[in-house]
Amino acid sequence: MPSGDAASQLSSVLARRAEAVTRRLDALLAPVGGPRGRVVEAMRYSALAGGKRLRPFLVMESASLFDVDPEHALHCAAAVEMIHCYSLIHDDLPAMDDSDLRRGRATAHKEFDEATAILAGDGLLTEAFAVLASPRCHPDPSIRSDLIAGLAQASGAAGMVGGQMIDIAPGRDALDLAGITNLQALKTGALITFACEAGAILGRADDKAGRALRLYARDLGLAFQIVDDLLDSQSTPEELGKPTGQDEAAGKATFVGLLGVEGARAKARTLVEEACGHLAIFSQKAMLLEATAQFVLERRT
Amino acid sequence: MPSGDAASQLSSVLARRAEAVTRRLDALLAPVGGPRGRVVEAMRYSALAGGKRLRPFLVMESASLFDVDPEHALHCAAAVEMIHCYSLIHDDLPAMDDSDLRRGRATAHKEFDEATAILAGDGLLTEAFAVLASPRCHPDPSIRSDLIAGLAQASGAAGMVGGQMIDIAPGRDALDLAGITNLQALKTGALITFACEAGAILGRADDKAGRALRLYARDLGLAFQIVDDLLDSQSTPEELGKPTGQDEAAGKATFVGLLGVEGARAKARTLVEEACGHLAIFSQKAMLLEATAQFVLERRT
Repeated sequence: MPSGDAASQLSSVLARRAEAVTRRLDALLAPVGGPRGRVVEAMRYSALAGGKRLRPFLVMESASLFDVDPEHALHCAAAVEMIHCYSLIHDDLPAMDDSDLRRGRATAHKEFDEATAILAGDGLLTEAFAVLASPRCHPDPSIRSDLIAGLAQASGAAGMVGGQMIDIAPGRDALDLAGITNLQALKTGALITFACEAGAILGRADDKAGRALRLYARDLGLAFQIVDDLLDSQSTPEELGKPTGQDEAAGKATFVGLLGVEGARAKARTLVEEACGHLAIFSQKAMLLEATAQFVLERRT
Repeated sequence: MPSGDAASQLSSVLARRAEAVTRRLDALLAPVGGPRGRVVEAMRYSALAGGKRLRPFLVMESASLFDVDPEHALHCAAAVEMIHCYSLIHDDLPAMDDSDLRRGRATAHKEFDEATAILAGDGLLTEAFAVLASPRCHPDPSIRSDLIAGLAQASGAAGMVGGQMIDIAPGRDALDLAGITNLQALKTGALITFACEAGAILGRADDKAGRALRLYARDLGLAFQIVDDLLDSQSTPEELGKPTGQDEAAGKATFVGLLGVEGARAKARTLVEEACGHLAIFSQKAMLLEATAQFVLERRT
């Protein structure tokens, strides 16, 4: 278990890296003039809105296990964050979750309009692959190609898009624990897992290290989602910067609904312990990844 | 100018290649069970609906100039068609063009629902990059990476997404000829140009050949769009399999509106001649690309 020192170190490293990611996104999504400028403006509105930048952090911290050039890791991290931001824009659309509030601000379709929001999501999704295809991400094209294959797998119908489909499909409300676990493994878990895998790909990690990171990410991603459910049921919109209690009100099955508040907390705790257990092979080098798991458990937003 | 023989050869090659592309898409987008199956079903509905498969044909025919393995060209062609199909799904959405009819059938959001259509578009867009990142597309990862960079550039905010933004932005109705030409260069031209460039990338073409193909594609793409405007103003929905006369009814500036029917026809003819002129360096090998330009001029759907 990480010490208090690790937690405080994590907090400053998280903040520093979040700033670096925002600066990189700002540079990659440079404003343009003319009528086309509107979609870039909407992409920037969503991508530069802040947030914890957890996925980029995982890319960078996993990469640091293998002494990857931080410049390469940051570039790759920006691509992963673009995918995350696109998914938030499309998930918030009226036809999907119909959310007006995100990160304490109007969602993209409220700030702009629905068509612009759809296009901004499409633009960010596309740009993520442009970023990974750039030699700035890594000079070795086989590594770039592996990153692209992995990100596409994690984001598409076999991953995030598939998870979102399950989340809005008929039968969603009645999912059992295995069904919800599968939904979340796809909807949020796949991208979190890729974020950790990306570090292993960039660092040409051996199979054992890659597998350890995947297992860490799997447990971390599920713990993250259970905590999300707990926050959704226990917090106010002001605290979270987004609507709360919507799943419950809609009668959707959630981890909290199925396990109870205490049961969900216990499950998240166990998962975080297991996540940290997978990091043992990296010893001290994985200290911040351990602290991240603890942070995910204790986060309030 | 291509002879009647070239035109008849083109017609059979087009049909044969369209079938091969549909078969490849069918295999790449294999159905899956469970609630996630719905988004794959919607992806298949749109991608397997047929159409001329002009962009895949351009990939394959350009590739054949450089004796590229047809298997690689076909794989790359399927990725380009996925991007085209995703763009049709999203462009047809209620928040965009709000079209109910496409290729003679209900559009994806009418056949399924809006959320599923958005996700199906996202899924196809993502899968296109997975397809290009696969060694089946080309064994050399630097070629795969170049293809991905080119496709992302052509499809994103600097290309197709940017063009669609201009097409729905305020000020669209009052565009002049230069404005419409720019809109179309982005909205439809960029992907057509990439289709031809892809052949050059797969074939490691020299700069001169690559440039000739780009210029051919630029003129072809613009001619294609002018003919689209002509068909939109002169055909019935039954003939085209999609709504007609919408741009005119909405007061949008079009090539036909700005140049008149005869002026637009003459402009398309000149562009097709110029397109063919750029192919001179390939001599007989480019016969079908020449015939394609003629076909684009004379097409009725």
